[in-house]
Parts: sequence; structure tokens; C-alpha cells
Amino acid sequence: MKTSRATPNQVNNTGFTSISNTEGARLTNADGSLNMRKTGLPPWELISIYHTLIHMNRRRFFLFIFLFYTVVNILFAFGYVLIGVEHLEGVSNTGSDSMSGFLQAFFFSSQTLTTVGYGHISPIGIAANSLAAAESFLGILSFALVTGLLYGRFTRPKAYLIFSQQAVITMHKGFRAIMFRFASSKNNHLTDVEVQLSLAFHVRENDKLTTKFFSLKPEMSKINSLALSWTIVHVMNEESPFWGMSWAEMQNVQFELLVFIKGFDDHFSNQVQQRTSYTVNDVIYGAKFLPTFRRSDDGKTTILELDKINQYEVVPLVEELTAIE
Amino acid sequence: MKTSRATPNQVNNTGFTSISNTEGARLTNADGSLNMRKTGLPPWELISIYHTLIHMNRRRFFLFIFLFYTVVNILFAFGYVLIGVEHLEGVSNTGSDSMSGFLQAFFFSSQTLTTVGYGHISPIGIAANSLAAAESFLGILSFALVTGLLYGRFTRPKAYLIFSQQAVITMHKGFRAIMFRFASSKNNHLTDVEVQLSLAFHVRENDKLTTKFFSLKPEMSKINSLALSWTIVHVMNEESPFWGMSWAEMQNVQFELLVFIKGFDDHFSNQVQQRTSYTVNDVIYGAKFLPTFRRSDDGKTTILELDKINQYEVVPLVEELTAIE
Amino acid sequence: MKTSRATPNQVNNTGFTSISNTEGARLTNADGSLNMRKTGLPPWELISIYHTLIHMNRRRFFLFIFLFYTVVNILFAFGYVLIGVEHLEGVSNTGSDSMSGFLQAFFFSSQTLTTVGYGHISPIGIAANSLAAAESFLGILSFALVTGLLYGRFTRPKAYLIFSQQAVITMHKGFRAIMFRFASSKNNHLTDVEVQLSLAFHVRENDKLTTKFFSLKPEMSKINSLALSWTIVHVMNEESPFWGMSWAEMQNVQFELLVFIKGFDDHFSNQVQQRTSYTVNDVIYGAKFLPTFRRSDDGKTTILELDKINQYEVVPLVEELTAIE
Amino acid sequence: MKTSRATPNQVNNTGFTSISNTEGARLTNADGSLNMRKTGLPPWELISIYHTLIHMNRRRFFLFIFLFYTVVNILFAFGYVLIGVEHLEGVSNTGSDSMSGFLQAFFFSSQTLTTVGYGHISPIGIAANSLAAAESFLGILSFALVTGLLYGRFTRPKAYLIFSQQAVITMHKGFRAIMFRFASSKNNHLTDVEVQLSLAFHVRENDKLTTKFFSLKPEMSKINSLALSWTIVHVMNEESPFWGMSWAEMQNVQFELLVFIKGFDDHFSNQVQQRTSYTVNDVIYGAKFLPTFRRSDDGKTTILELDKINQYEVVPLVEELTAIE
Repeated sequence: MKTSRATPNQVNNTGFTSISNTEGARLTNADGSLNMRKTGLPPWELISIYHTLIHMNRRRFFLFIFLFYTVVNILFAFGYVLIGVEHLEGVSNTGSDSMSGFLQAFFFSSQTLTTVGYGHISPIGIAANSLAAAESFLGILSFALVTGLLYGRFTRPKAYLIFSQQAVITMHKGFRAIMFRFASSKNNHLTDVEVQLSLAFHVRENDKLTTKFFSLKPEMSKINSLALSWTIVHVMNEESPFWGMSWAEMQNVQFELLVFIKGFDDHFSNQVQQRTSYTVNDVIYGAKFLPTFRRSDDGKTTILELDKINQYEVVPLVEELTAIE
Repeated sequence: MKTSRATPNQVNNTGFTSISNTEGARLTNADGSLNMRKTGLPPWELISIYHTLIHMNRRRFFLFIFLFYTVVNILFAFGYVLIGVEHLEGVSNTGSDSMSGFLQAFFFSSQTLTTVGYGHISPIGIAANSLAAAESFLGILSFALVTGLLYGRFTRPKAYLIFSQQAVITMHKGFRAIMFRFASSKNNHLTDVEVQLSLAFHVRENDKLTTKFFSLKPEMSKINSLALSWTIVHVMNEESPFWGMSWAEMQNVQFELLVFIKGFDDHFSNQVQQRTSYTVNDVIYGAKFLPTFRRSDDGKTTILELDKINQYEVVPLVEELTAIE
Repeated sequence: MKTSRATPNQVNNTGFTSISNTEGARLTNADGSLNMRKTGLPPWELISIYHTLIHMNRRRFFLFIFLFYTVVNILFAFGYVLIGVEHLEGVSNTGSDSMSGFLQAFFFSSQTLTTVGYGHISPIGIAANSLAAAESFLGILSFALVTGLLYGRFTRPKAYLIFSQQAVITMHKGFRAIMFRFASSKNNHLTDVEVQLSLAFHVRENDKLTTKFFSLKPEMSKINSLALSWTIVHVMNEESPFWGMSWAEMQNVQFELLVFIKGFDDHFSNQVQQRTSYTVNDVIYGAKFLPTFRRSDDGKTTILELDKINQYEVVPLVEELTAIE
Repeated sequence: MKTSRATPNQVNNTGFTSISNTEGARLTNADGSLNMRKTGLPPWELISIYHTLIHMNRRRFFLFIFLFYTVVNILFAFGYVLIGVEHLEGVSNTGSDSMSGFLQAFFFSSQTLTTVGYGHISPIGIAANSLAAAESFLGILSFALVTGLLYGRFTRPKAYLIFSQQAVITMHKGFRAIMFRFASSKNNHLTDVEVQLSLAFHVRENDKLTTKFFSLKPEMSKINSLALSWTIVHVMNEESPFWGMSWAEMQNVQFELLVFIKGFDDHFSNQVQQRTSYTVNDVIYGAKFLPTFRRSDDGKTTILELDKINQYEVVPLVEELTAIE
């Protein structure tokens, strides 16, 4: 039976290579990003500005646009100073003010860029007027982009799924089965939810470390509506690449379970998706999950307790391998 | 025959659990929302601001952004007062006015936030100018978000379906059949419309209340174009979970019919979907629907009368159960 | 053979009813809209403002927003006049001007609504300032909506297909075949283009006018790329509802060919679709299309001549019905 | 065996015609655009403004909107001059300035169009006020469109794929196989990636140049995730249209390999696609690709070297045709 182990649906449609080039490192990080770097092109060609700005965390994004606003104002302030601050009308009038000409030009610039245009400072002459006309034009265009980005970030379809930190292996219908679960964590509602599982074994073959990929069949791969939490179950039966493997062997091949979930969000009116992966170190051999939901006190509704998504109890598993072999 | 009743395609891909945790309460409300609550995370992590603001009703949304506008202006007004209203030029000039400095700062703030910037009040000095520059910047950003939200709400793809309030059970092709119908209520046009039906039975088994789920086969599950109203028909034949059940038995299992409709809207250029559910209390046993459309008086066009979508006539149903058993 | 005529794939997944309620009138207009009206709800519930404003023609749309702008300004001008134009500072100063107070309030309103805010007129006192603050707020919100609508109209995914005005019936592979063709008329490029055909016969049965629907199989239903024009061919063989019908019989059943095309537009990054229909009066019995494309003079590229899409030549068709029956 | 060569799945679902109307020229350019022109309609009807502005390169786009801004300002400046610059208040005051009335009207126009509205120039009288009200209204609308376009260009879903410049033919599993490869070049991540291959032969038949189309089966047509580079392999076995053809024959039929890739981008939340084509001149007969990725120095991650995507080594191919025939 040993040789049959690797045969069930060994495929590689994961996009990863079968030449194991990472030593003990995972293919996909737990947050779903790829454990990978790209080189060979100039840095600016390796980056999509859009993807970078959308993916950036909130704090850095706001810092970025604040710096952009400041730098643009400084550049234009230099421009007005070069032309001469005497061409900004209000500036000469309030010369008694403690502010330098540069600072006054800076604030005039900000009033122009944001199109506030109070008018207590205003441009005189062709040069200053032209620069101001260009700046207000640029202001509208660049705020348009910032607006779009801000809105794009805010409305970017996200799945908002939380996964159990561990996967567990327990008995199910007379076989061992590997299970993990997830739920949508917010007031969003996914429909037509689908799961795709891939499995990677890192094995040493002819003294070369290679990775073998398998498509893993979940017991149910699609549900109409993600109302409660959903426990994904892969039964380790004859058709499973895990068939006949002991826990020690599973650890030996350093398996990694690649998870890809997609669904349709009614509010975004768009498909959303999320990826994660469980390495063998994230798996509890001999444990089962505890329920995540209960009846409300008035018996009228169901309560989903998201803090319980990681709760399991240890249920020692008799090594039934001897029975198989 | 009794035992075969529960066997046909008993599945649970509804996303609900088979452990009946709600007593007599429905799984899905008539408006399509889930009868469910989430707990176990801090409140702010249970909420997607986007979903909340998109889902909120119109009145509350406008109240929300009006309050936001007012509160931001009050905060900035405090800022200008802290700096000193003497640093707002026009304020000192119109000191003869009956308005307090705070109110004048408030209105200056509103002029800055909306980038109107009349200029009869204008900032003097570094502190006031900086605050104004920051406010106009913030104004543009926050109005960008509000703009986006307003537009997002306005253009959010919706199916605009109206459903018959009741489902009816009547004879159809020699069998009993359960029927309900719906139509698009506005000047929208759905194409590639698809229906998915699930059925839930709440039954007491071994003294425990459990829910059984079935996938229910409609006579036709897809149409090219939702031109008129569409009556969904499920025939209660040998393959149906209803096969051999009397009306009393149906009431006893407290069945709930879960309905999910999706289609493509040409104007939104997007998929739209709507859910609803009929509990056993929404079903008339022995009734058939009356037509919803008629020829126009000039015979040139068809008129769909949406007020007739709930109209049915009672057609007593001979209990043919005796014949089956 | 007569009876077998109606049997092949008679279905009704068109969304239209089989009870013929329109006398000689078509189900779908040539521009793809439905020949239908809805009633039974208050007018405002029958209308989706979004669909109406997106569907409206360009001239009426611009008129609509121009009127909106004017009416809002008039309403606010009344507000300022009620408060008293003496609370608008610049107004009293330019009282020597020939403009009435109302007109000056109107222009001040427009400067506030668009957030230009020149400042030669500015509000004094709580009432005028509050109204102005509200107006600039409203201005931003309503221009946000107009902006969105304008952009939504401009970027609404459209297929830009032009269809041949006539369909033709000609011999093809030993059978008669009905053909029509279409091309994308602009510099857009559709991929994964799919066609769905339905056929409606209006026949008198037992003295009642009824409509029979058939799904019609095109020779090829999908192409990868709509590069040139695409001629859709339905062969009238044994599986066709047209099998064995003479041209006189076809005219007698007043057939209508319902056409639905969908594809993916790379620039819109969205699915686009277009509908049309050919009634029996749009069909030439015994004609074939002439080519729409030719080699460029330098032989390096292909030229698609869209004005030729309607060109056909008459090719008399021997009535082969006698041979069949 | 010769005659069987053209039989395997000869289809034409490419959207191109089988009448070869281009002499030696390709159907699809390497950048994925079609080698085609459209005529027969007035020029403005052949153009979708949206597609043109989205497709235009960046430099030309910014030039276009800058010219638009300038031209609109010039037109309105003429309007104010016609009404008389004495109706612009600030203009007469700064008459001592060296600027002409037209230039001052131009700058006033720019301040109105961008809604900066400093107010040192302001309109007097009905005519000037009306024109200014109209201009600020127009300004908001046109900047709305420009904003939308800019954002639409910036966020337009793109696949960012780079393809190997050459395709290679090498031995693979005992057969010859044609291979090319591609990778996503930026920090984007495509999932559910699918490839469709078509093949065109330009052959002389009965003294007429015709094009034959084939659907080409890749060894794997779909992967879950485009993590590294993906090498598309078509095996030239009995089912391939290339079966039994020598390199000379392949060159003789001037084959062109049409490639269409689509996938789902998580950040755009949208389907993206890219096309390319390899003509026989882009193919190296007897070569294989070198690896594009390697282990990072710390062994923890994978490095994809995009500059190596074009690297291959020559591996002479024994003409095994003799063996076949």
C-alpha cells in the first residue's frame, strides 16, 4: 500500500513549482500572502502604484498623502518666492505679520491647491497668476486621485473571514479527517461560498528536496450562504493523499494545507476571496472543535460566538495505521 | 413509504446548522436578512463601517453625515478659539456683529471645510493658517468619502424584486405543487435569472429538536429574461421531501422555504441578488394565483399589474394522501 | 410530420408568457427594450431613479441637472431674501448696481453652491451664515451625486454592437438556414462572446391566440474574440422548430427571433450585453449576406466596412418543402 | 497520415475569418491588439470616447486635459471681454497692472472654473454674474469627468503579465512540444488563471490563400494561483494540428499562436485578461527555457527573477518526422 500513497490526484495547479526551493519555509503565509520575492526588473517596474497604495496599511497611507500635500505646497511656495512675494497682493499688506514671505507663500499655495481661495492673498501679474492657475488645476487633479484612492480603499471588496488558528485531526465517519473552520467576522453576508484545498508535501527524493502537490477533496465544497461558521472537513480515506500515513509520517513530509475561499458579497455586489494556509505545526492530532453558536436566551435567534472559533477539546486518536497495513 | 420521506436529497449546503437552536423562529427573515447575531469580538471588530453605512436607511444616513459635518466644525471652531479669534481677520472687523467669537469661528470653519472660502474672514499667523490648511485638506478628504458613500449607496446594484406575500399549494400536472411568484418592481430589467430553493424541516428526534435541510428542485430554475412575473413551481412528486406528507404533517414540521434569486442587471452591469423565505404560516393550502398581466387596450403592448402579485383564489385541495399510502 | 413540428425543444425560459396577450405586436423591440408596461404601484415606486437617470438621453440629462442647479439656487435665493439681503455684506455695498436684491442673492447662492465663494458678497449674522453653511454642504453632496451620475453614464459598460437590419434565409450545408450578423461598431474589443437565441410563434389554437416558445440552436454559440463581424447561423434541420415549414407557414405563425448577446469588454473590465429581435417582417426569404471586410491596399491589415453590414444579394430559394413532405 | 493533419479539432471560434485576407501579416499584434481597421461609418461613430481616453498613453492624456482646461478658459475669457472687463470688479482696480484685460479675464475664468474664487476679481451685473455662475457649474461637471477618467485610468484592472519574447519547441514526454511562459511582473497576485490557445495556419489551397484555425490544447489550462512563472506547454501528439509536420512545414504554413490569458485579481476584485500572439518567426525550434526562480540566500523564501523569463538554451531537436511517416 505504501507506493499507492502518492498516487491519488497528484497534480500541480497551485502555481508553485515542484522543485522545493525553500527549506522548511511555507509557500503561503497565514495571512494568505505568498512567501516570495521578485527581482530582475528595475524596482519601479516591479511595483504597481495602485496595488501598493491599496494594500498599504491605513496609518502609512494617511502619512503618505499628508506628506504629498506638504511637499507639493513647499514646491509651489518656492515657485511663488522665485516669482517674488510682492506679486501676492495680501502678503505685502500683512508684512507687519511675523510670518516670512516663504510661509505666507506656503499658506497661499495650500489655499490654492485645496481651492479654498479666501482671497486675502491673491496673485498679481502674469507669472503669479499662471502659477496659481496651474496649481488649482493640479490640486483638483491630485485630490481627484486621492479621493479615488481613499474611496477605493474604503470600498475594496474584502471577505472579512476569520479562520481557526489550528486545524484538527479527529475521527469522522470511521476515518480520520482534518478539519478547520471559519466565519465572516463582520456584518457582511457571503453567498455561494466555495472552498478549494491544495496540499503540499515536502519530501526528499533521490537526495533532492522536492515538493509534491495534491488537490484535496473537501466533504462539501460549496454552500449557499455563510450564515454561521463553516467547518471544512477532508476525510483521509482511500482517495486521500494522507491515506495510510501516521502522524509521524505527516510531520515528516512537513505538509502544508493551502486554503482558498471565494464567495459573493451582496453589499459589495462583487466576488470576494481570502487565502490562508495551515502548516503541519498548526495542526492538532487528536482534537475536535467545540460549537461556536448557541440559542439566544429568548429562543428567538441564533448567536454566533466568534471568540469560540479557536476552541477545541483534545480527543486522543487511536493510531489505526496498524489496522490498515 | 414513511421512511423514504426524509431521504430525497437531504443536504445541508444552506450554511445553517442542523442542530435546531431556535424554537419556532425562522432562519431567514422575510426581507432576506439572517435571523442571527454575532458576539465574541469587541463591537468595533464585529462591524464593517462600509457595510453599516451602505445598509443604513436613508434618513439615518443623512442625519449621520449632517452630524459629522457639525461635529467637525465645532471641533475646529474650538481650535480657532484656542488660537485666538483675533487671528481670524474678518472676525475682529465685524465685532460689532451680535455673534460670539465661537460662532464666527464655527462659520469660518464651515467655509474652510467646504472650500467655499469667501475670504471676509481669513486666517492670520502661523497657527491659524496651519489649522486652516489642515482643515481644508481634511475637508476634501472627508467629503471625498461622503461623496463616495452617497454615490455607492445610490448606485448599489439592487434587484428590486417584489415577492407574493403568500406561497400557495395547488394541483399541478397530477401532483400537488408549492408555488410563489415575483417580479421586478421598477424600470430595471434582469437577465439570466436563476432561482435556488432550500427547505428546512424543524423536527423532534430522540427528544432533541433538530433541523433537516433539503435542496428543493424547482420545475424551471433559470430564465433568460425577467419580463413579466415569474411563478416558481416545486412539484411535490416522489423526489420531493414533501412526498406523502399531509398538510397537517407539513405544519407539524414547521417547514421553511428559503429562496435565493440572482440575475444580471444591464444598467448596473452587475449581478444582483435577493433572498426571502416562506414559513409554513405564509402558505395557503389549496389556492392558485390569478394572472398579473393583461393586454393593453390598443392590443399593442403587455401590462404587468404589480398590485395583483398577491392575488390568489381558493381552490380546495382533495387530500390525496390516502391514495398514496 | 406535421405534429412533430412543434415538439423540438419547446421551452419557455424567455420570461414571456405563453398566453398571447399582444395582437401582432412584438415581444422585444428592435432596440432590445421590452414591449411592456408596469402598473399597480404608485408611480414613484415603479421607478428606480438610478435606472431612469442612467437610461435618459444625453440632452435630457443635461437639461435635468441644469434645471436642478437653477431651482436649488432660486430656493436658496428666496431664503436669503427672507432673512434680508442686508445680511449679505457685498450686496448693500453694490446697491447702486442695477440688480435686484433677489438676483444678487441668487448669484451669491450659486457662488456658495459651487463653492467658488469669491467673497465680494459674504453672509453676516447667524441666520445668513447658517444658511450659507448648509448650502455649501448641500452643494458638495448634490454635486457629488451629479458627478457620480455623469461618470456612471460615461463609463457605463455598453456593447456598442450594430446588427444587420435584416435576417436572411438561405441554403447552408444542404438545409435552409436563417442568418443575421453583427459587429462591434467602435474601438472596443469584446472577448468570450456568446449568443442565445429564442423563437416565438404566435399561433391560434382552439380559437385562442397563444405564443409558443422555442430555444433555437445556433451553429456556433461562442467565439473567443469579436474581431470582425459575426454571422449567426441557425440551420433549419430536423431539430429545428422551423423544420418542414414553408415561408408562407413561417409568415402565418408570425415568428419573432429573440437575440441576446453577451461578452467581456477588456476596457470596461466588465460583462456587456445587448438584445435585439427580428420579426418575420425583418426577414428576407432567399438572400445571402455580402462580405463586410477586405484586405487593405498594402495587404498588411484587414479592413472591416461597417456600412456593408446590411448588404445582401437575393438568391432565390427553391421551396424544398415538397421534397420533405 | 498527411490528410489527418488538418482534421484534429479544426474550428474557428477566434472571431477571425477563414478567408485569408492579409498577406503574411499577423492577426493579432504582440501587444494583444488586433491587426485590423474599421471603416464605413462617420469617424465619430467609430470611436468610443471612453475607450479612447482610457487607452491613450499617459503623456497624451495629460496633454489632452491640459489643452481642454486652457481652451475652456480662453473661451470664457472671450465671453467676459465681450460683456466688458469693466464688469469684473478687481480688474478695473488693478488697471495699472501690466496685464491686458483679456489676460485678467482669462485668470478670473481659471479661478472660477476651478472654484478657487479668490475674489480679488469678482463679477458685477447680471451678464457677468450669469456667465460666472454657468462657468463654475461647468467647471464642476467637467472636472467631475476628468476626475473620473483619471481615476478610471489609474484603477483600470490590468493583468501586468510579461511574456517570454520567444516560444520554444523542445522534446517533452516523448513528443515535441511548443512552450512559452509568462509571469505577473508587479506586486499583483492573480488567482484562477486560465489560458486559451488558438492556432492559425495560412495555407494556399486551390491557388487561394486561406487561413485555417485550430483550437490548441495546453497540457494544463488552469492554475489556482499565478505565484511563479507559468510555462504553457502544448504537446504535438496525434491530437495536435502540428502532428507529423516538420519545422520546414511549420514555417511554410506561417503558423500564428494566439494566446488569451484571464485571471482574477484580488486587489482590483475583478477579472483581468491579456492577449498576445507568437508568429512562426518568434519560435525557436530546438531550445528549452532556463529556470526563472531560485532559493533566497537564507533559504526562507523564493525569488522570481523576471529578467530570466526570456532565457533559453539551444537543445538541437532530432527531426523525428522520418520515424512517424
